Amino acid sequence: MKGSTETPKAPSQKGALIIVGGAEDREGKCLILREFVRLAGGTDAKIAVLTAATSAPREVGDMYTDIFKRLGVEHIEVVDTRAREDAEDREMIQAIQGATGIFFSGGDQAKIVESIKGTPLDAAIRERHEQGAVVGGTSAGAAMMPDTMIIEGDSTTNPRPEVVELGPGMGFLPGVVIDQHFAQRGRLGRLLAALLLQPTMLGFGIDEDTAMVVQGQEFHVVGNGTITVIDESESSHNNVDHALKDEDLAVFGVKLHILPNGYRFNLNNRQPIAPGA
Amino acid sequence: MKGSTETPKAPSQKGALIIVGGAEDREGKCLILREFVRLAGGTDAKIAVLTAATSAPREVGDMYTDIFKRLGVEHIEVVDTRAREDAEDREMIQAIQGATGIFFSGGDQAKIVESIKGTPLDAAIRERHEQGAVVGGTSAGAAMMPDTMIIEGDSTTNPRPEVVELGPGMGFLPGVVIDQHFAQRGRLGRLLAALLLQPTMLGFGIDEDTAMVVQGQEFHVVGNGTITVIDESESSHNNVDHALKDEDLAVFGVKLHILPNGYRFNLNNRQPIAPGA
Repeated sequence: MKGSTETPKAPSQKGALIIVGGAEDREGKCLILREFVRLAGGTDAKIAVLTAATSAPREVGDMYTDIFKRLGVEHIEVVDTRAREDAEDREMIQAIQGATGIFFSGGDQAKIVESIKGTPLDAAIRERHEQGAVVGGTSAGAAMMPDTMIIEGDSTTNPRPEVVELGPGMGFLPGVVIDQHFAQRGRLGRLLAALLLQPTMLGFGIDEDTAMVVQGQEFHVVGNGTITVIDESESSHNNVDHALKDEDLAVFGVKLHILPNGYRFNLNNRQPIAPGA
Repeated sequence: MKGSTETPKAPSQKGALIIVGGAEDREGKCLILREFVRLAGGTDAKIAVLTAATSAPREVGDMYTDIFKRLGVEHIEVVDTRAREDAEDREMIQAIQGATGIFFSGGDQAKIVESIKGTPLDAAIRERHEQGAVVGGTSAGAAMMPDTMIIEGDSTTNPRPEVVELGPGMGFLPGVVIDQHFAQRGRLGRLLAALLLQPTMLGFGIDEDTAMVVQGQEFHVVGNGTITVIDESESSHNNVDHALKDEDLAVFGVKLHILPNGYRFNLNNRQPIAPGA
């Protein structure tokens, strides 16, 4: 544990979410991590890096510490929870309580839920988020954002019930489904399967080095790829109630939007917005 | 050249198209090739196998000859055009004139267009198709079906102008875009790019071991995967007029249907149809 633990001023609004499709640029312009730092308070940010998802917490913690230092942040703490009891550790909770930006690394999303969900650390993260701290995550750290998350699944396949395993997520962005490494791994089929298997209307496929930055009821896109929005609310037919585990899913009239950098989306009325519109 | 060249009775209706997403089952139940043979006249079919796309015409010709024989067809001729002058060969043209089913192998779609389009062989194929012969093709033999075809492109990418190269196809199914190996190679991005780059409203992504069987103004799906229909006719925004070669394409409100085996689609009114509906 390093850095200050003095509590910064609590802003009055809920903080942004920065949900990254994995493999964000860490060596060039770092557009996405830069946006995270900016929203967390710029060089005055106090950043907590959560390494719960990764099997190499020390290396990953050091890597993000180096990047955030390079961007001018002085206060960076790595919160390295490896088991559920670690998420009761007073020092770790204090690191969260002092943070203006909380960033979840990639790895295995199930490990985030297993070691943090429902713990005092989780409560501290939610409290800080309500007070205005930015919560970000990449890859596994993106997958865990909804209340129901994709635990794992097959890429480059058509939608079938068996291609995706769903389970409880952390619930920072409830009521949607998120998939990451979207174009790079050909995950249209698994995102559609996830969307059809649960009573949710909106799915977001986030490309690598691309982020959805959620503020209030809107998000905007930052990065070098696109976000594929899948809106099932007006679809006129699907066969999910009849399909067995290995059978092909059908659906009619799903709406699809492709949103590059600078485009926005209203989560309330499900309307995409072009830059300058 | 083997088999009979006597001209079979010409049916009065234009023949079906069987457009296969590649890697159709050739060892198990051969559902798709079976449908091709059935529509070509069953065991009385006279099949011409066109190997223009492949770099291994002898092996591929032998392979399809063996399969069609296994399904009970006696008259099979391999039409092996390697250069444009081969497509003026009288024996080859007679093989087409005697065929009730004409099947294009996989390989490189550009080679089909280069060696056949506009030749007397091409004219013979079109004449037989008008008279009722089934025209089928797999992979490259599927890609070449529209009037504008995907020559090549990148898989597992978001849509950008540079990810797809378009050129004239054979035009058996004009006014649409077709991509093959669709789910297996993660080709949503390249199909969307192709669709946005030309004034066409309908794109079809055909999975491996899956076929669209076009009869009149409708097609039905046969096989173990799905056909992803992308209908751009009601989309409300895209940035294709402004995007440079390497820039991300945006589009709002594309309609998407996923159609498994047994589902149908009306090409006129662009409506999908569930089995039994």
